[in-house]
Amino acid sequence: MSKPLVVQKYGGTSMGSVERIQHVARRVKQTADAGNRVVVVVSAMSGETDRLLGLCQAISSNSHPREADQVVATGEQVSIGLLAMALRDLGQNAVSLLGSQVAIRTDRAHTKARIQAIEGDRIFRELDAGRVVVVAGFQGIDDDGNVTTLGRGGSDTTGVALAAALKADVCEIYTDVTGVFTTDPNMVPKARKLARVSYEEMLEMASLGAKVLALRSVEFGAKYSVKIHVRSTFSEEEGTVVCQEDEEMENVVVSGITYNKNESKIAVRGVPDQPGVAARLLSPLAEANIVVDMIVQNLSAQGHTDFTFTVPKSDTNAALEIVERLAKELGATGVECDRGIAKVSIVGVGMRSHAGVASKMFQTLAAENINIQMISTSEIKVSVVIDEKYVELAVRVLHSAFGLDAPDA
Amino acid sequence: MSKPLVVQKYGGTSMGSVERIQHVARRVKQTADAGNRVVVVVSAMSGETDRLLGLCQAISSNSHPREADQVVATGEQVSIGLLAMALRDLGQNAVSLLGSQVAIRTDRAHTKARIQAIEGDRIFRELDAGRVVVVAGFQGIDDDGNVTTLGRGGSDTTGVALAAALKADVCEIYTDVTGVFTTDPNMVPKARKLARVSYEEMLEMASLGAKVLALRSVEFGAKYSVKIHVRSTFSEEEGTVVCQEDEEMENVVVSGITYNKNESKIAVRGVPDQPGVAARLLSPLAEANIVVDMIVQNLSAQGHTDFTFTVPKSDTNAALEIVERLAKELGATGVECDRGIAKVSIVGVGMRSHAGVASKMFQTLAAENINIQMISTSEIKVSVVIDEKYVELAVRVLHSAFGLDAPDA
Repeated sequence: MSKPLVVQKYGGTSMGSVERIQHVARRVKQTADAGNRVVVVVSAMSGETDRLLGLCQAISSNSHPREADQVVATGEQVSIGLLAMALRDLGQNAVSLLGSQVAIRTDRAHTKARIQAIEGDRIFRELDAGRVVVVAGFQGIDDDGNVTTLGRGGSDTTGVALAAALKADVCEIYTDVTGVFTTDPNMVPKARKLARVSYEEMLEMASLGAKVLALRSVEFGAKYSVKIHVRSTFSEEEGTVVCQEDEEMENVVVSGITYNKNESKIAVRGVPDQPGVAARLLSPLAEANIVVDMIVQNLSAQGHTDFTFTVPKSDTNAALEIVERLAKELGATGVECDRGIAKVSIVGVGMRSHAGVASKMFQTLAAENINIQMISTSEIKVSVVIDEKYVELAVRVLHSAFGLDAPDA
Repeated sequence: MSKPLVVQKYGGTSMGSVERIQHVARRVKQTADAGNRVVVVVSAMSGETDRLLGLCQAISSNSHPREADQVVATGEQVSIGLLAMALRDLGQNAVSLLGSQVAIRTDRAHTKARIQAIEGDRIFRELDAGRVVVVAGFQGIDDDGNVTTLGRGGSDTTGVALAAALKADVCEIYTDVTGVFTTDPNMVPKARKLARVSYEEMLEMASLGAKVLALRSVEFGAKYSVKIHVRSTFSEEEGTVVCQEDEEMENVVVSGITYNKNESKIAVRGVPDQPGVAARLLSPLAEANIVVDMIVQNLSAQGHTDFTFTVPKSDTNAALEIVERLAKELGATGVECDRGIAKVSIVGVGMRSHAGVASKMFQTLAAENINIQMISTSEIKVSVVIDEKYVELAVRVLHSAFGLDAPDA
């Protein structure tokens, strides 16, 4: 019982073919051979979930969430069986377990269920018998034994939740990148892999578009203090550890720079400055399932104010239609739209204890003649909206200004 | 509770595409609209089980029966979800249930498990709520909640076993033929569909190669007196009812003629006629997993006997290798093999009460100059081995001789 317990999660790309599954099996065995008890969580083979959803859509254009979950959950069921076979072929005893066999108990919200409890008995019994336990990600059962799924990215959540329930020493999330970077390495060659990052920073980065970990899995990790190690399936190097912030992290002012080019800016000019106006503008957008990201309201002048916000590029037309109707009703003077914008953000827990971070950002951009159109801040993040054509320049100069450049790149 | 309860089973061909599943849904709804409570058992979409087995073989050349069951059982899981969706789209409330959700309890013999008990509570609860219940065929769970499968043809067994457990009025097996025929209609145009056939006759016919129903499902039906109605998915006409034999059936001497061209004959000549010789010849074949079908031992002459038997054509070489070695050890005078044979059988419960059935068979064949090489009989069956080239002629003349020809064909 004193052996360390490691939960490893492998995504669809890592499980994408027979050869890759056999590669995953070798990595898992290495971990077991090094003296660990190992629980592995896997996704469906890449493409499989989409194939199954396609079958559901072909049979019915209506929504049948319970039955869709019954169908889609088979993707992970195939993966776990195949990986357990590959492990046994390597001489590593192993057993696959479905969400229902563990059991992973969820609420009844089919296609987007939330994990409520995980029973550890069966897993510990299998571990004690010297087996690697291969658990189906993304799925669970409700109180009536119906199969549920957790929604996209659900396997990350299964991994972290299992690590929490089993009190594992670490949850390793294997993916196709080597870790979390100070910014997008495809855009900035000097981007550096972070050795450690706090849950909060990871949440800000994930919500800003750095898609390494599913948001909910990070929230789960933060809630139960699960050490999450993000690393590559295809390399041996250490990745990035997501954990509680500590003093060392606080000394770093900015941990990462993120950007998002998939939003448009909509401005409503000359709105009467009355209570309830923001709600009257935004509620109809929410009802239309349009996610509004940044929202900025300028100071009122002569009883009127300007109201500016960003929406996903793909929802721009739908949003404009709604907003133009509302602008008339409210007596606003006009609506403007700009599809050529980008959002750039700096993220870091060190901002809490360091003054002048935002102004250093603005100065850095000003020095390059980059005009700032909108500003929004949170405790550990500053976001600005700029002209889309400057996004690379902005990310690069900020990366240098905040001391994030790799020394030798 | 007074509504009739119908169990329907649809095989892989009936579930072979989105359109076919929607067709099945319409048939199921018809049955429900006619005032029945309906439980449907389905197989995986045709080709799906082979695809999944192929994945297992690609990942490992070894046998991992528990994990293979975990993988292969997903085929039926997809079918039940899709059919439940199609039913709901037609306005027929429906719910899909896995073997584990029913629950269908089996022994631990993975890949060829046997059903031990079926719980009816969940199914009756769903039926009482006005739902059609769609159950995954071919699968169950053992006492530890491991997923098991019943082996090929297992969905038939699930259907009949469910009908027995739920005390259903009938178990309808939907397939791509319209019922059980007096002989192969592709060979004999005058073949007639039987309105009724007894379990025993069906068992003899199934084991002789008339592949309409899986053997084990007929055994189950006989044991629990389940009325089995074999009929076509693609036509409305009545099929064949498999049930207890009655007086009317006994008046029919022969119900069907079957044939099998997939066997070879092996003869061991001049074997010393001593106790234990048959076992010494046949045990090594059983150990090599070679199924020996007909076995005939001639009268002994001068302390020596001839020993003749049939084996599947595909196992002929393997069988010969073993038999030639044994023949030497036993001091037999020689081994002969004939790959150009066929077995023709007449089946009928009426044989029990009618004398002269076998001799009528032999006379009929003799009249056509067809030489009989081997004879084997059971209570309700007479089988002969003849030259393969006469098989069509033999079946045709026997079909006429025993009064089976359709009047108008």
